[in-house]
Amino acid sequence: MVKVGIVGGTGYTGVELLRLLVSHKDVDLSVITSRSEAGQAVSSLYPNLRGHVDIAFSEPDISALSGCDLVFFATPNGTAMKMVPQLLDAGVKIIDLAADFRLKDTASWQQWYGMEHACPEVLAQAVYGLPELHREAIQQARLVANPGCYPTAVSLGFIPLIENSLVDDQHLIADAKSGVSGAGRGASVGSLFCEATENVKPYGVEGHRHLPEIRQLLGGVAGHDVGLTFVAHLMPMIRGIESSLYAVLKAGDVDLHQLYTERYKDEPFVDVLPAGALPETRSVKGSNMCRISVFQPQGGDTVVVCSVIDNLVKGAAGQAVQNMNLMFGLDEVTGISQVALLP
Amino acid sequence: MVKVGIVGGTGYTGVELLRLLVSHKDVDLSVITSRSEAGQAVSSLYPNLRGHVDIAFSEPDISALSGCDLVFFATPNGTAMKMVPQLLDAGVKIIDLAADFRLKDTASWQQWYGMEHACPEVLAQAVYGLPELHREAIQQARLVANPGCYPTAVSLGFIPLIENSLVDDQHLIADAKSGVSGAGRGASVGSLFCEATENVKPYGVEGHRHLPEIRQLLGGVAGHDVGLTFVAHLMPMIRGIESSLYAVLKAGDVDLHQLYTERYKDEPFVDVLPAGALPETRSVKGSNMCRISVFQPQGGDTVVVCSVIDNLVKGAAGQAVQNMNLMFGLDEVTGISQVALLP
Amino acid sequence: MVKVGIVGGTGYTGVELLRLLVSHKDVDLSVITSRSEAGQAVSSLYPNLRGHVDIAFSEPDISALSGCDLVFFATPNGTAMKMVPQLLDAGVKIIDLAADFRLKDTASWQQWYGMEHACPEVLAQAVYGLPELHREAIQQARLVANPGCYPTAVSLGFIPLIENSLVDDQHLIADAKSGVSGAGRGASVGSLFCEATENVKPYGVEGHRHLPEIRQLLGGVAGHDVGLTFVAHLMPMIRGIESSLYAVLKAGDVDLHQLYTERYKDEPFVDVLPAGALPETRSVKGSNMCRISVFQPQGGDTVVVCSVIDNLVKGAAGQAVQNMNLMFGLDEVTGISQVALLP
Amino acid sequence: MVKVGIVGGTGYTGVELLRLLVSHKDVDLSVITSRSEAGQAVSSLYPNLRGHVDIAFSEPDISALSGCDLVFFATPNGTAMKMVPQLLDAGVKIIDLAADFRLKDTASWQQWYGMEHACPEVLAQAVYGLPELHREAIQQARLVANPGCYPTAVSLGFIPLIENSLVDDQHLIADAKSGVSGAGRGASVGSLFCEATENVKPYGVEGHRHLPEIRQLLGGVAGHDVGLTFVAHLMPMIRGIESSLYAVLKAGDVDLHQLYTERYKDEPFVDVLPAGALPETRSVKGSNMCRISVFQPQGGDTVVVCSVIDNLVKGAAGQAVQNMNLMFGLDEVTGISQVALLP
Repeated sequence: MVKVGIVGGTGYTGVELLRLLVSHKDVDLSVITSRSEAGQAVSSLYPNLRGHVDIAFSEPDISALSGCDLVFFATPNGTAMKMVPQLLDAGVKIIDLAADFRLKDTASWQQWYGMEHACPEVLAQAVYGLPELHREAIQQARLVANPGCYPTAVSLGFIPLIENSLVDDQHLIADAKSGVSGAGRGASVGSLFCEATENVKPYGVEGHRHLPEIRQLLGGVAGHDVGLTFVAHLMPMIRGIESSLYAVLKAGDVDLHQLYTERYKDEPFVDVLPAGALPETRSVKGSNMCRISVFQPQGGDTVVVCSVIDNLVKGAAGQAVQNMNLMFGLDEVTGISQVALLP
Repeated sequence: MVKVGIVGGTGYTGVELLRLLVSHKDVDLSVITSRSEAGQAVSSLYPNLRGHVDIAFSEPDISALSGCDLVFFATPNGTAMKMVPQLLDAGVKIIDLAADFRLKDTASWQQWYGMEHACPEVLAQAVYGLPELHREAIQQARLVANPGCYPTAVSLGFIPLIENSLVDDQHLIADAKSGVSGAGRGASVGSLFCEATENVKPYGVEGHRHLPEIRQLLGGVAGHDVGLTFVAHLMPMIRGIESSLYAVLKAGDVDLHQLYTERYKDEPFVDVLPAGALPETRSVKGSNMCRISVFQPQGGDTVVVCSVIDNLVKGAAGQAVQNMNLMFGLDEVTGISQVALLP
Repeated sequence: MVKVGIVGGTGYTGVELLRLLVSHKDVDLSVITSRSEAGQAVSSLYPNLRGHVDIAFSEPDISALSGCDLVFFATPNGTAMKMVPQLLDAGVKIIDLAADFRLKDTASWQQWYGMEHACPEVLAQAVYGLPELHREAIQQARLVANPGCYPTAVSLGFIPLIENSLVDDQHLIADAKSGVSGAGRGASVGSLFCEATENVKPYGVEGHRHLPEIRQLLGGVAGHDVGLTFVAHLMPMIRGIESSLYAVLKAGDVDLHQLYTERYKDEPFVDVLPAGALPETRSVKGSNMCRISVFQPQGGDTVVVCSVIDNLVKGAAGQAVQNMNLMFGLDEVTGISQVALLP
Repeated sequence: MVKVGIVGGTGYTGVELLRLLVSHKDVDLSVITSRSEAGQAVSSLYPNLRGHVDIAFSEPDISALSGCDLVFFATPNGTAMKMVPQLLDAGVKIIDLAADFRLKDTASWQQWYGMEHACPEVLAQAVYGLPELHREAIQQARLVANPGCYPTAVSLGFIPLIENSLVDDQHLIADAKSGVSGAGRGASVGSLFCEATENVKPYGVEGHRHLPEIRQLLGGVAGHDVGLTFVAHLMPMIRGIESSLYAVLKAGDVDLHQLYTERYKDEPFVDVLPAGALPETRSVKGSNMCRISVFQPQGGDTVVVCSVIDNLVKGAAGQAVQNMNLMFGLDEVTGISQVALLP
C-alpha cells in the first residue's frame, strides 16, 4: 500500500483526487490538509464522500506529511515550492498538480507567475508528468510536475505531427474550450452561474500561462522553438476540454489517421477514434481518457486535430494518479479505468 | 459469475446499466439486444464504453436470452410482458426496469398504461424491488419489478412516517423535481435542449403514472388506502430527483431525525443527513445513494422531508443491480458503491 | 419625463432596471450610484448596455439624488433605510427593491433581518407594492416597498383562494423553485457555476426571510393569521420562479378556473392559462408577466396552483417600473410589455 | 405600414421573427402559415406570445400571401424556391431566411444542398443580405437571401482584413461555436437536452454547408478565391455564436484596432470593443448586435479576431428585419434596438 497525503484538498482538483483515491486498491489515504478547513470532516464539505472518507482536514504539517510515501499538492500556484524541498529531504515523493515545477526556465516561470521561485534548484530536477512522452523518466522520478489541463489536451493532439516534422511548426493554432471547473472553486464573479451559463467567451488571448508550458513541451518534441497561437474559451459546462488544432502540412501525402493510431496504439489513456468520427467532451466525463480525431478537410493542406479530455481527470487528478502508479511500479491503469458518466 | 442479458440497451437506462455492469466483478455480460441497432457495436453508439464493451447489439431472441441466468429489460412499457413468461419457463430470472410488473391490480395497470396486460397471472407473482421494504422477498424472487424513479424517491421519504402512523395520510403532498434524462432518449420536442434548459415546469398534475405506484406502495405500508397529491416538475439538468414531501403530524412530540436515522441505519443506500443539513441532487450524481433530511419548520405541525436520488441509478439501473445482487446472493453493494461525481 | 436616479446599480436587479428604463419613453435616467464602481462607465461593467447608456456610476450623494423625481434603491438590505428619510424630505419619491420597508412590524423586521431599523416611523407609511392588491394606495404613495420575488409568485397564486375563504388557511404549502440570479451577483461559493448547475437543492426550510413577508400579505387578505410552510429550492437556471401551491379545500363545489380568470381579468400582468394548461418559467423570461394555472387533481379536496414569474422582472425590476408608472400617472404597461425571450 | 406574411412560423427562427415583428411599429402582421399547425392559435404553440399575437396559423396559400407587401420564409431549405417566383410575379418582396438563394452558383448549390434548384434564374437576381457589405443593393432588392448565422459572424470578423489584403487569404481559419438553437426545433436525438448539455463537440469538419457561403462572400471581397478551414462546434447553450478567426499577417505594421473601428464606425449593429476587451455571447443575447475584438498576440504575425452574435437575431430574424427596414425605406434600426438580456 502507498501511504498518501494530500495538501490542499478542498478545491475541485482535491475532491476529484479524493474520489479516485478512495477507490484505489493500493492506496492508504492518511493525511489531508487544509488551512481553512482544519478540523472539519472531509465528508461535511463534500457530501458525495459521506461513507467513503472518514478523516478530517488537518493543518499542513511537515512532520505528519513526512510519514507518507507520496504527497500530492492540490494547492494554488506558489504553495508547493515552499514545502517540497523539506519533503524530498525526508524521502517523500511528490506530485504537484499546480504549476510550481512545470517550466524548466526559472526566469520564464517568474515572469508568467509573477513571483520569485522558492527552489529553482529543485525545479530543474522535476519531471514533467505526461506519461505519453516521459513514461520512463516518471517511473524514476521523485518529483513530478503534473501537466496543466490545456497543455495535456493540446500537446497530445500535436505530438504526432511535430514528432514527424509534418507541419509548419511556426504557425500552430490551438483553439481550446474548457468547462468552468478549470477556474477552480474560488468565489469569483466570473465563475458565478449567472455569469458563465448561456455564455461562451474567449479569454487570455494576449497571453495565457499555459502558453509557455505548451511551447516548452512541443519545443522539446520538435528540437527547436515552435510558434503557437493559443486561445482559451470558457464554456458553460462543468467538466471537459475540447481543443481544435490547426496546422499547415508541409507534405501532402501522409495517412494521418494511420499515423495517430500507430503513435498511440499502446497508450491506455489515448483513444484515436475511427476515421471520420469526432470526439465530444461528454465521452470522457469522469474518465481519464483522451479521445482524438484527425482530419484533412477537402484534401487541402490544413490539418485539423480535435482532442477531448476531462480537465479534472486526465487534465489533473487522474493524470496525477496515473503518474503515481508509474512512480510506484503499480499497474498504470489502477483506480482510473472508470467508464465516463454518460449522459 | 452471473451470466447476464439486456433487452433494449440503447436508452439512458440501458447505457447506465452497461456502465455499472462492465465494472461488476461477478457479472458476465453476454447478450445485449436492440431491434433498431442490431449488428452495431455497443461502443459505436456510446463512445464512453469504447474499450469497456466489445460486443454488438443483437436482435431480441428468446433462445439466446434463455442461456442467461438473468435478463434485464430496459425497454419501453409493454415490451417485457410479452417475453417474460417464456424466459421464466426457461429458468431465467428477470428484472424489469419498465412498469410492466409494478402494479398488482391488473385493471389499474390497464387503465394507467392504456393497453391490455399480456400476462396478468405473472404480474401477481412479481416482487416490487424496493430493497428497503422487500429485501427478503427479492432474495427469493424470480421476477422483480424495478421501481420507478419518482416512487423510489418519494416512498423512501414517506416510509418512516407512514410505518409509524404519525401523519394525516389522506393529505400527503409530494412535490418532485426530475432531471430530463427521466424522459428517456427518444427524440421528442419537449426534451430538446432549447425547450428544457433555462426552464422549470410542472407536468402531469392531473394524473402521473407514478401516482398509482406510489399509492400502492404507501398503502401497503399503511395497511389502508392513502391520499396523495403528486406533482412532477421538469428541471434543467440531466440527472437527479429531489422530492419535497409535506404532511400534517397527528402528534407533535416525536424526534423525527432520530426516527429516520434509526429506520435506515442498516441500509447501505439510504443516508439520513445530520440534523439541519439539506440534501442536493449532485451529492448522488452517478451514485446509488438516496440522501434524506426531515424537518418540522418553526416547530409547527407540518413535517417536511427532502430526499434526493440519481434517477438513473437508485431510480433505475443501480437499484436493478442492487436487486440482482440480492437475487443471486452476492454482496448487496457489489458494483454500485461508486462515489458521486462532484462537481 | 420622470427624472430617475438609481442607487446601487451594479447587481442583477440594477442591470435589469437599466435594461427596462433605457427603453422607457417617459424616463430620463440621470444618476446611477455605486460606491464600488464610481467613475466607471456603466457600459464597461455591463457590455449589453453599450450604446444604450452613456453615463458613469457616481458616488452615492444625497444632493444629486435630491434633484430626481424618483429614486430606485437596488441595494442590499439595510442601505435604503439610511437615505430614504432625507430623500422623502426633499420631495423625492422612492421605490425600494430591497426589504427595508416590506414588513409592517418593526420587531419582526429586526428579528428576520438581524439589524436595527433606521427609520421605523417611515416603515409604517410605506405601501407594499403589489399592484394586484394595492393599486390605489400605490398611486398615492411616496414610498413603495417593492415585493420580494417569492412573495410575488406565491401570493398571486394564493390570493383568489384566500380572498374567498375557500381553503384551510392554517396549512398552506408553498413549494417554490428559483433560478440562481435570485442570489444576486455577489461572489459566493454557493452561486458558482460548478456548484449550482446540474443540481437542485432545497434551502431555508427552517425559516426563509420571505416567509414573514408572505404571511403578512396573505394574513392581510384573510383578515387573520395564516399558517404557511414555505420551502425554497435552487434551480440550475438564471431566471424564473415556479411556485407550486397546495391547500385543502373547505368546500368542493367551486369552478376554480373561472374564479381565477375572473379575479385577474383586468390585470395586465397576470395571465390565467386555459384550463388544463401548465405554465413554464421560460414563457415569462425577460417579461413582466405572471402566468397561473389552478387544478383540483382527481377531483379530490386538494387544490394545486402553479404560478411562474421572471424573478428579475415581475419579481423585482419590472414590478418596480410598474409601480413607478402607477405613482406617476403613466400608462401602467409603459416600458414593460416586452415579449418573453423564447427559446 | 408594411403588410407582412410569414411562411413557416413554427421553428425558432419563426418565433424570433414574431417576437421582433409584434413590437415593430411599422409592421402589420397579417398571415402566418404552417402546414403542420394550421388552425392553431400562434400563442398556443408559443405561450410567450399570449397577449401579443392573436392570429392563428393558416395553410400556406399563394393568394393570401400575394396580398402582402413582404413575405418572410422561415422554412426548411428547399421550400421557398418553390413559391418565390409566383410571389415575385405578384409584386411581393421576399426575404428568405433559409439557404435557397444564398449561393450564386447553381451547381454548387445543388451539390451542397443535395437537390435540384427550382428556379435558378431567380437565384441569380437575389441579393445576399449582409447590410455591412451590400446595403445599397438591399435597398433596391425585391428578393433578399438572408445570410446564415455562421457566415454572418465569420465574415464580419474577416472583412476588414480581406478588404485591405492584409493576410494570407489562402489559409484562413474559422473556429466557430454555436448554441443549440442553430439546429432548429426539429425532434432529433442530437439536440436533446441530455445529449447537448455538459458537452462540447466539433462537427462538420469535413464540409459544412456554410463553408461555400463564407467562401463566396469573402472571395467577393478579395476579388479571388480564398482558402478557408471552417470548423463548427456545438455549445451547451441556447443562443449565441462566437467565432475565433486566425490568419497570418503579410505585413506587420498595421493598427488593427484602429482599422476595425474605422471600418464599422457607421454601422448600427457592429460594435468594435475597446482595445484589449473580449466579447462574450451573452452581451448580445436577444439583440441584433455583433461585437468584435481584434488581437495580435505577443506582437507576432498571427492575427486573432473574435466576434459574437445571437444566431437567432443578427444571425437570422434580426438581420431579416434589418433587411426589411432597408428594403422599405424605414429607419434601419426600427424594432431591433433591444438591449441584450443579461444575465
